[in-house]
Amino acid sequence: MHPSRSAPTDWIVQKIADPPGGLDTTTTHQHETFAEGLVLDCGTVLRPLDVAYRTYGRLNDVRSNAILLCHALTGDQYAAETHPVTGKPGWWDTLVGPGKPIDTDRFFVICANVLGGCMGSTGPRSEMTDAEGHPQGRPWGTLFPAVTIRDMVRAQAMLVERLGITKLFAVIGGSMGGMQVLAWAALYPERVFSAIPIATAAWHSAQNIAFNEIGRQAINADPEFHGGEYWRHGTIPARGLAVARMTAHITYLSEEALTRKFGRRLRTGPMLTFDNDLFEVESYLQHQGSTFVQRFDANSYLTITRAMDFFDIAAEHEGALGAAFRASPVRFCVISFTSDWLFPTAMSRELVRALNAAAANVSFVEITSDKGHDAFLLDEPVLFRTVSGFLKGAAERWR
Amino acid sequence: MHPSRSAPTDWIVQKIADPPGGLDTTTTHQHETFAEGLVLDCGTVLRPLDVAYRTYGRLNDVRSNAILLCHALTGDQYAAETHPVTGKPGWWDTLVGPGKPIDTDRFFVICANVLGGCMGSTGPRSEMTDAEGHPQGRPWGTLFPAVTIRDMVRAQAMLVERLGITKLFAVIGGSMGGMQVLAWAALYPERVFSAIPIATAAWHSAQNIAFNEIGRQAINADPEFHGGEYWRHGTIPARGLAVARMTAHITYLSEEALTRKFGRRLRTGPMLTFDNDLFEVESYLQHQGSTFVQRFDANSYLTITRAMDFFDIAAEHEGALGAAFRASPVRFCVISFTSDWLFPTAMSRELVRALNAAAANVSFVEITSDKGHDAFLLDEPVLFRTVSGFLKGAAERWR
Repeated sequence: MHPSRSAPTDWIVQKIADPPGGLDTTTTHQHETFAEGLVLDCGTVLRPLDVAYRTYGRLNDVRSNAILLCHALTGDQYAAETHPVTGKPGWWDTLVGPGKPIDTDRFFVICANVLGGCMGSTGPRSEMTDAEGHPQGRPWGTLFPAVTIRDMVRAQAMLVERLGITKLFAVIGGSMGGMQVLAWAALYPERVFSAIPIATAAWHSAQNIAFNEIGRQAINADPEFHGGEYWRHGTIPARGLAVARMTAHITYLSEEALTRKFGRRLRTGPMLTFDNDLFEVESYLQHQGSTFVQRFDANSYLTITRAMDFFDIAAEHEGALGAAFRASPVRFCVISFTSDWLFPTAMSRELVRALNAAAANVSFVEITSDKGHDAFLLDEPVLFRTVSGFLKGAAERWR
Repeated sequence: MHPSRSAPTDWIVQKIADPPGGLDTTTTHQHETFAEGLVLDCGTVLRPLDVAYRTYGRLNDVRSNAILLCHALTGDQYAAETHPVTGKPGWWDTLVGPGKPIDTDRFFVICANVLGGCMGSTGPRSEMTDAEGHPQGRPWGTLFPAVTIRDMVRAQAMLVERLGITKLFAVIGGSMGGMQVLAWAALYPERVFSAIPIATAAWHSAQNIAFNEIGRQAINADPEFHGGEYWRHGTIPARGLAVARMTAHITYLSEEALTRKFGRRLRTGPMLTFDNDLFEVESYLQHQGSTFVQRFDANSYLTITRAMDFFDIAAEHEGALGAAFRASPVRFCVISFTSDWLFPTAMSRELVRALNAAAANVSFVEITSDKGHDAFLLDEPVLFRTVSGFLKGAAERWR
């Protein structure tokens, strides 16, 4: 069907403001501090370690109803409540809440900001310390060490222990959140009863590394980046970060979703001009880019995209993915979406094959959706039914 | 298969130089000048009009053996010879030459730089003129008018007429070149005997507009762009243009091709660092970006990507694609590649359906390839056989 004939969108064209003055730094975030710090895979010690987090629901007396949610690249701990900076609903508000598939009347849900993030967990915006924990009077900035998905998971494990939880009922996440789910199962098989990795992979592909690199290059190319020392100059690399976000955003959608949402519809009158927001799809992307810079730190973006690129569970076991999960007691529910071309179903199938070969307990659901990678964040009834059904089944087997 | 186990690549890692000082401006290009100029779709008159071109082979006495090649976004007229700026083989050297599928022992092959380009045809780098053709003492730069694919084709038609050719035996091109092929067939059905649109579409999709917009945003974000007036400042927006090229380059490849070529192979020693060229795929992309800026003008990039975005043959006929080709005498051979996700087979199928509904003479070949959109430029034996076979069949029916 020609896109000009597609149904009108309910998306409202919004005026794109000039790049905003800077990242929100006024919001304080609930967190736990670990004075002993964390030794990273790269050898650097982060001391102290802060882990910012939110919880929803109530931990039961036997501490058996805890679910950990792991967020994606640009997510954060505000999974199921109004976001304190953007004022928008939490990123998994559709899935998590009273009576929802991840039912907070029943489960105690934890979501932590990842290590390296910019919403309260230790990251490039935190004050730099030496190995003994002495503050250095400056933010880490570009000197923040390289972190891995495993490092993120180790920090979450410290939080979970601090909260008095010996074993999580479930660990759930999509995209980079799914990578953390897999790392949890590989690192702490005795501390995870069930795991739901969604729209993810056991290693980051060459194409995904390439798309991340576009974003990093765009940030590096922005003169306001100042080699990562923008905090010294009172600037933020808003334009570079916006280009990074725009690029990533395209990869989250499917061709079908973009066509349905925008087609070739024009925003404004005359066709043959050079206006930068001629087509609705452009205006939408620019809006995505410019709102993102208000809530995200460029050095965090560099740190976290690199953690994704490093991710390769098979490589940690001499290329044998199954070895990471040999005789794992964890119950897996692997979920993918047909139109996801960033983490295509083939990657989930490869994971499922390895889990099967490792004699792990695994079910696999490929959900038909034309919404692309983003489907895991959207109103997808089959996803909701799959998650609630799997959790229900798992609960029946949970001592 | 885990990418670390894939076969080693023969691609040599090259040192990426600092952004070069500027675009090559020393090479002169063979061209024809049309004093009468061209009235563009937007109403602006380009006067005079220069069309730079190259020819291969010899025009026969009855002038019946001419084939026009149409180049893609970043191609140019140097289709089948060593490129005067890069020193590399022509972009269709595999397909065009003595004894090759487009046999220059037999055909007279013409390839022109597109209107708006930067290799000798009138474009943003040309001296600005008023509607009477009086020079204005400055390059067009950012004031260069918006051009369309049809405008490009009209300029080519003037060249073809100047060369004394009444009817082309074939018009052939891939990607944006394929858009020109379709525009030729729609505008000048009596002047084209056969047409081979490859890896293309009858309109530019929302996703493709979005990817183009990333490139434009990256160029605009580069402080050396100076709002398009970089020629005044003696600069070029090398970093922004490189990001644009890198983004586009990913879309030209398939996930399989990237994995086969690079997988997750590291360039250098230690894994957990922030080096920008840690993975081979990154280094490759950066090389693609930095060599591109030596041969391409940023304002041309903006002009030509916009022309692609405007392209929509159906919209020119009230959304009815078939109406553009009603009872067309042109013989079409539509070609697509299975792993092309930029111009997927579905788009070619839609074109073929419309051509069939318009009672046009059309054959369609979907070629199995894992090389992505780029396949039309690569060593694809099935492509070669398809083109040579179709040309042979068409020649038998050509008076």
